[in-house]
Amino acid sequence: MRRSILASALLLCVSMPLQAASPTTIPDAALTTAATLRQQALADDTGWKITESLTTEVGPRLAGSQADARAVAWAQAKFKELGFDKVWTEPVTFPRWERRSEHAQVLGEHAQSLVVTALGGSAGGTIEGEIVRFPDLAALQAAPAGSLTGKIAFVDFQMHKKRDGGDYRYGGGIRGRGPSEAIKKGAIGFLMRSAGTTPHRVVNTGMTRYEEGLTPIPAAAMSIPDADQLERLLALGPVKVRLALDCGWDGEATSYNVIGEITGRSKPKEIVLTGGHLDSWDLGTGAIDDAAGVGIAMAAAHLVAQQHPARTLRVVAFANEEQGLYGGRAYAKAHASEIKQHVIAAESDFGAGHVYAFNSNAPASAKGAIEAIAGALKPLDVAYTPDQGDPESDIGAMAQLGMTWAWLGHDGTDYFDLHHNADDTLDKIDPKDLAQNVAAYAVFLYLASEAKGDFGSAPKAAGSEKGAH
Amino acid sequence: MRRSILASALLLCVSMPLQAASPTTIPDAALTTAATLRQQALADDTGWKITESLTTEVGPRLAGSQADARAVAWAQAKFKELGFDKVWTEPVTFPRWERRSEHAQVLGEHAQSLVVTALGGSAGGTIEGEIVRFPDLAALQAAPAGSLTGKIAFVDFQMHKKRDGGDYRYGGGIRGRGPSEAIKKGAIGFLMRSAGTTPHRVVNTGMTRYEEGLTPIPAAAMSIPDADQLERLLALGPVKVRLALDCGWDGEATSYNVIGEITGRSKPKEIVLTGGHLDSWDLGTGAIDDAAGVGIAMAAAHLVAQQHPARTLRVVAFANEEQGLYGGRAYAKAHASEIKQHVIAAESDFGAGHVYAFNSNAPASAKGAIEAIAGALKPLDVAYTPDQGDPESDIGAMAQLGMTWAWLGHDGTDYFDLHHNADDTLDKIDPKDLAQNVAAYAVFLYLASEAKGDFGSAPKAAGSEKGAH
Repeated sequence: MRRSILASALLLCVSMPLQAASPTTIPDAALTTAATLRQQALADDTGWKITESLTTEVGPRLAGSQADARAVAWAQAKFKELGFDKVWTEPVTFPRWERRSEHAQVLGEHAQSLVVTALGGSAGGTIEGEIVRFPDLAALQAAPAGSLTGKIAFVDFQMHKKRDGGDYRYGGGIRGRGPSEAIKKGAIGFLMRSAGTTPHRVVNTGMTRYEEGLTPIPAAAMSIPDADQLERLLALGPVKVRLALDCGWDGEATSYNVIGEITGRSKPKEIVLTGGHLDSWDLGTGAIDDAAGVGIAMAAAHLVAQQHPARTLRVVAFANEEQGLYGGRAYAKAHASEIKQHVIAAESDFGAGHVYAFNSNAPASAKGAIEAIAGALKPLDVAYTPDQGDPESDIGAMAQLGMTWAWLGHDGTDYFDLHHNADDTLDKIDPKDLAQNVAAYAVFLYLASEAKGDFGSAPKAAGSEKGAH
Repeated sequence: MRRSILASALLLCVSMPLQAASPTTIPDAALTTAATLRQQALADDTGWKITESLTTEVGPRLAGSQADARAVAWAQAKFKELGFDKVWTEPVTFPRWERRSEHAQVLGEHAQSLVVTALGGSAGGTIEGEIVRFPDLAALQAAPAGSLTGKIAFVDFQMHKKRDGGDYRYGGGIRGRGPSEAIKKGAIGFLMRSAGTTPHRVVNTGMTRYEEGLTPIPAAAMSIPDADQLERLLALGPVKVRLALDCGWDGEATSYNVIGEITGRSKPKEIVLTGGHLDSWDLGTGAIDDAAGVGIAMAAAHLVAQQHPARTLRVVAFANEEQGLYGGRAYAKAHASEIKQHVIAAESDFGAGHVYAFNSNAPASAKGAIEAIAGALKPLDVAYTPDQGDPESDIGAMAQLGMTWAWLGHDGTDYFDLHHNADDTLDKIDPKDLAQNVAAYAVFLYLASEAKGDFGSAPKAAGSEKGAH
């Protein structure tokens, strides 16, 4: 999941680090080695095998579940198997949410089932009410207070496919804030058209958040064909729906950020950070979200390790990204005093589509190095896009503290066909795209590790953390 | 559903009617009118509107369910609304099967859910057993007796896309006969890779039949990604699965063939028959299977009615095709003495893909008329294919009794992406293809109605009914 599209513009503005003293450069020898790595990676299936292993042997791994614990063990074992010389875990604690069952049914003369899934964090319960349709969140917000008393709000916004996944700002916004807005108008339940783009009858889940002081109501998404059907039924007259969700919070859970390191040959205390998140939603096997990210990061660092990079490569398999960036925030809390040592970071959490763009918020002093990395990425059909990008999800909190980020932008055209739904399975990943992803990360990790001079990571004043998730 | 692929070759051999006395011809004026009808139909959305109405207002309509009863009322009302001058029902009685819930779970160190659906007619129950994989039905049949005692048979055959849907003979065969074969080897449960071609996590249901004398076991299909996953897990070692199906038989139900007629202007007692089936499986809204068939037949007859055809057009919305051709068999029983009056028949039960082929089993005496109809279909990009085709599902029983059939072959390349699964919804139909389908049927119905001479329908000796379903 990529939560930070909204935040990216903000980060570009507020998180530009102070300029470093002298220009950072990439040695020519490193560029030559990077070209070799690039070719090696394109012919290598390590990324695929890691992704296959996680999605098969663990499968779905909802944060706090037994499968999540198995994923933590898997990640430790996989780091060791891949030759990472330091492997450890750091605890991440969060409230546990569980999905048990979910049903929705149109009542009355057109009685029929609807394919729905509870939003993460939804309250459980069974309700029956008349549907009131809103084309988007603004329309729901504009409804008079009390106008939905005893009714079910239905926000019927259709996301469209975009390379940068831009429509997710609307779809994700409806999911996050829609239920609270519905409660404020008196609604007893909330339904939304899936925040996705697939025409198949699978439903995109994802977290919702009830504003403090509101009494949570059952909140679910329905598949796009079901939303179309509900729209047609509403055109025939009033529609009453029964929504039955068995789900909810169940105490507290502790999971772990799993960390593997390839110690640097000459600057072991300087870290080039990468990673993905280890947890997934429960409906699919979390292949594009985010086994692929874990696979890309592990495989790229593993390949680069053969070249004995100068700086340490650190790969983090972050815990519980999906329910609120818990792993990324815990990491930032634990490593807040080490911003400068985190020379630069790039996370992969936007699927396994072709990496088409590269950028970093490194300061002008590092521009030469960034452009050199961009040049080494160009043969992979990656463009340098100095006005785009963001630090992805889990490294956002560290970026807020002043860590410099780089961005390797995946083509997200088809990402929301799969994101958070049952179709997020291994077969949806193109092995060639995944190898290109690994190649791009390997080039980045190696060159960032070999760069002479830094990328401007430096602690920022406290209180600038807003906008990170 | 098209159950009769296997039977088609047989029918071509055994059901050739006796030759009629004099050549049957199509008047030139009728061909001119057919050209007009063809153009009208391509620009007309009546077929779409009917299909939309049935899939929306009724939705899924499992035979014997409350929704099935609503579908019967819907069809009667729709015939009247479309100006059919005679509308009636004929009862069809059958055992009622219900699906209530279905779950499957890999147990042990790789614990995870599998997306499954009970096969129609499956026994309910919860079982746990080790998976034994077979690549196809023959391999299961070749297993030693008793070799599956306490285990779950998994038949892992993948259908491939074909224009004529030819792989369904294997996929459908596994579904129909696999559970019985598994029981004979001692299995306590049966799983199969979906008899379908979709890479999405929706599962194709459909009837299975337990051989007499065997004690039924729970039998389910799993989605293709889940079958892939199970295959990968089996490569890691033994896999134990819990299969929990709540489903089963619940007494007897009566539904109805719903029949609408446009009385012929000059030969009212001679019938040109068409139709589709009214029931559907419960997972989708039965759009391509077979609301489209009902929509095509109703719309084509409605359009032709404006030309006051010579013979009577009869459209049958058949009851309970899915669970054993009950409607088609009841129709044949009720109308067995009227074979000769059923001049020719063509049913639409293979989706709403482009009609690409035409054929009939009419005798040589009617070849001129059949070729003339083929000529009138050619501008719709329909080829005359004298060695292909069959009478489709519901008219098979009448064809066995001697009724001449025609075949308008739909492109089934994508049919098994949707057939019997949750994705069989209105949005999957291309309105342009549907209009072409209506145009093809309208041309056929009109010209068959205006033909001078018959198409060879004549009662056959009793006992030749085998092979019809």
